[in-house]
Amino acid sequence: MSERGERPPVVVQKYGGTSVATAERILAIADRIESNLTQTPRLVVVLSAMGSTTDELVGLAHQVSERPEGREMDLLLSTGEQITVSLLGLALQARGISAVSLTALQCGIRTDGVFNFARIRSIDTGRIHEELDSGRVVIVTGFQGINETNDVTTLGRGGSDITGAALAAALGADACEICTDVDGVFSADPSRVPGARLWPAISYEEAIEMASSGAKVLHPRAAEVCMEYDVPIHVRSSFHLREGTWIREGEEIMERAEVISVTSDAKIAKVTLLDVPDEPGLAARVFQDLAAAGINIRLIIQSASSAHQGRITLILDKEFLDGARELVEQWEADKVTSGCVVEDDVAKISIVGSRLASTPGLAARMFAVLAREGINIDCISSSEMKVACVISADRLEEATRSVHAEFFPAGGAEAATA
Amino acid sequence: MSERGERPPVVVQKYGGTSVATAERILAIADRIESNLTQTPRLVVVLSAMGSTTDELVGLAHQVSERPEGREMDLLLSTGEQITVSLLGLALQARGISAVSLTALQCGIRTDGVFNFARIRSIDTGRIHEELDSGRVVIVTGFQGINETNDVTTLGRGGSDITGAALAAALGADACEICTDVDGVFSADPSRVPGARLWPAISYEEAIEMASSGAKVLHPRAAEVCMEYDVPIHVRSSFHLREGTWIREGEEIMERAEVISVTSDAKIAKVTLLDVPDEPGLAARVFQDLAAAGINIRLIIQSASSAHQGRITLILDKEFLDGARELVEQWEADKVTSGCVVEDDVAKISIVGSRLASTPGLAARMFAVLAREGINIDCISSSEMKVACVISADRLEEATRSVHAEFFPAGGAEAATA
Repeated sequence: MSERGERPPVVVQKYGGTSVATAERILAIADRIESNLTQTPRLVVVLSAMGSTTDELVGLAHQVSERPEGREMDLLLSTGEQITVSLLGLALQARGISAVSLTALQCGIRTDGVFNFARIRSIDTGRIHEELDSGRVVIVTGFQGINETNDVTTLGRGGSDITGAALAAALGADACEICTDVDGVFSADPSRVPGARLWPAISYEEAIEMASSGAKVLHPRAAEVCMEYDVPIHVRSSFHLREGTWIREGEEIMERAEVISVTSDAKIAKVTLLDVPDEPGLAARVFQDLAAAGINIRLIIQSASSAHQGRITLILDKEFLDGARELVEQWEADKVTSGCVVEDDVAKISIVGSRLASTPGLAARMFAVLAREGINIDCISSSEMKVACVISADRLEEATRSVHAEFFPAGGAEAATA
Repeated sequence: MSERGERPPVVVQKYGGTSVATAERILAIADRIESNLTQTPRLVVVLSAMGSTTDELVGLAHQVSERPEGREMDLLLSTGEQITVSLLGLALQARGISAVSLTALQCGIRTDGVFNFARIRSIDTGRIHEELDSGRVVIVTGFQGINETNDVTTLGRGGSDITGAALAAALGADACEICTDVDGVFSADPSRVPGARLWPAISYEEAIEMASSGAKVLHPRAAEVCMEYDVPIHVRSSFHLREGTWIREGEEIMERAEVISVTSDAKIAKVTLLDVPDEPGLAARVFQDLAAAGINIRLIIQSASSAHQGRITLILDKEFLDGARELVEQWEADKVTSGCVVEDDVAKISIVGSRLASTPGLAARMFAVLAREGINIDCISSSEMKVACVISADRLEEATRSVHAEFFPAGGAEAATA
């Protein structure tokens, strides 16, 4: 896929929904590109849709259909990026900068056939290189691809990051820049946690784990693609040209810090299947059904005791809740479970760091802080790089600030990085 | 191009901007299609953009560029039809009707390379027939095509009619239905002229002449295409299923009526070139410049006298006025003319009928009515089927009603059709 070295280096810049939210913001991006044009002679820009456009389109779809999804929904949503790329193209041209806006079809982004949650299979970079060779800034619609029959497929939420990463990999880019409304990757969401620290560099694995636990850094699949093709990622502000956070090989922060991030995620829901009979195949059936419905599960907690047969707890993204409710009804009808409890007032708080599992006591410190604040831990999941607790949604902000203060004490900036 | 006879007959239905203006209107179209599905088993629906969407997109474009045009503008505007076809697809699917929404690329509508005003060159009907064979209602984006390099090209104002006609021709359709917010083709705009008469049938030539003189019947190029491929057009209401006006071969209304329509057009402007020197080539230069700028001229009036050398008066659509002003400056600089007068407060009133030119006295009756009302005639143009007068814009409504009353007297409905 990589063509690095055959041509002068390419930079891919991705701008998200808030960076293109209005015509003024699009003009600001045009200014930013213009001011840095000599530094980035071969520039590919990937854009998301304006946030309001997506909301309006989804609203229209719900007015004509109870459950708008599938092929037509993708065709509908894909107009959002077509609008922003056209506008940036017009804005650059109005400044006398040669630019061309390309749709997924025009720049050969091919996906599998799964509507609403497609995966990129290949990118034919011919047209992009042609346009770059002619001295044009190339502007590409994020979030979307084209399947075998030329139908538009979208990549799911945050899909523009994946487009940016895949293009950077296919073009052998010098860097995949994720331009956003914060200055880089922080130890916690800086808009919610005062004193959150900006990291100059982290590893791919740390970025993936942070993104997977709800930090709005970038889409974890985007980081995976860049890791696989060894493309450095630069998460930085779309407002200025100062350096942000580099994500690349050999940037193990863990030699300095044990916990690099406290992340929170309020967009989850919890489904508990009660009294699942201890029969072979029932759990398998549950997960096969979830997979067939395209529902991603974030955490699975299974417990068995004599008191209440088997119990399976699933943590999933709120967007999948409607689909999960339908499965739940089916499972109850088929006696897979005696009943289900669906809760959408839960949230998840996680600590992330490369060697968490091998550093005893870090999880204990997190639990102790939550206990001290009187915040009940509903369930716990941990992996090599992460400890996640499900708690009540209304305690999330408080929990995040307290846990962050534990690992990154105010005024003691060096303490956690010692 | 035609494949008629090889497969069961196809009906093409085109719905314009007001018919898809809101989600409710789109649901109403879905109802209409559902209620008539057994009558139209092979149905191709062509949609325009929601009127408000187009206005919003044009507004956004003007916020980022002083003169948004060309390739990026076409990509931007083409999202409008993508939205409506997706929504109708979702609405039909929600009713359990199998339907598929196709873009110009997906249904192979190929155009020349002229952005903003492209012409359809060919349609590859393979995908459409495939979808129809699978029992689907096929919904196609109007107004747009794809050029050789897969760039989106739009067909200009009213372009969805042309898409409908071209598809009807390519598919050998039984009829091209133009579904609109009036009941058919009237002797004058029924919203402005009380007593305007609905015609059950007119000829292609009459429809073309009426459309060219400003009647909002359908795009004249659409009628030309259907005439060439012998596809009957049915102009009818999008609100109900009653018959409207058929446009087809052998429907010469003129055996019964001399004037079939009084049309008015307020969207014109007038450019007068004063003192054009009587040198060979100057007039040619003027029209070459206009053609190169893509400016269509509706009427040309040239006069010469000893008092003021040559004078050329051009009547053009208001949308071309900015472009014309630029040319005017150039012509003044190059001494093509000593000066120009640009007027945008003018309007055009026309009478249309198949044998106007061979029926002396009809034009005289029109002029007499205008004189009686004290409406000054600025200039006159006539052709075999039309007499057009340019008058002051603020007298247009009055003029239209008076001239219509002359040829279609109230209560004497049969007089004009005798």
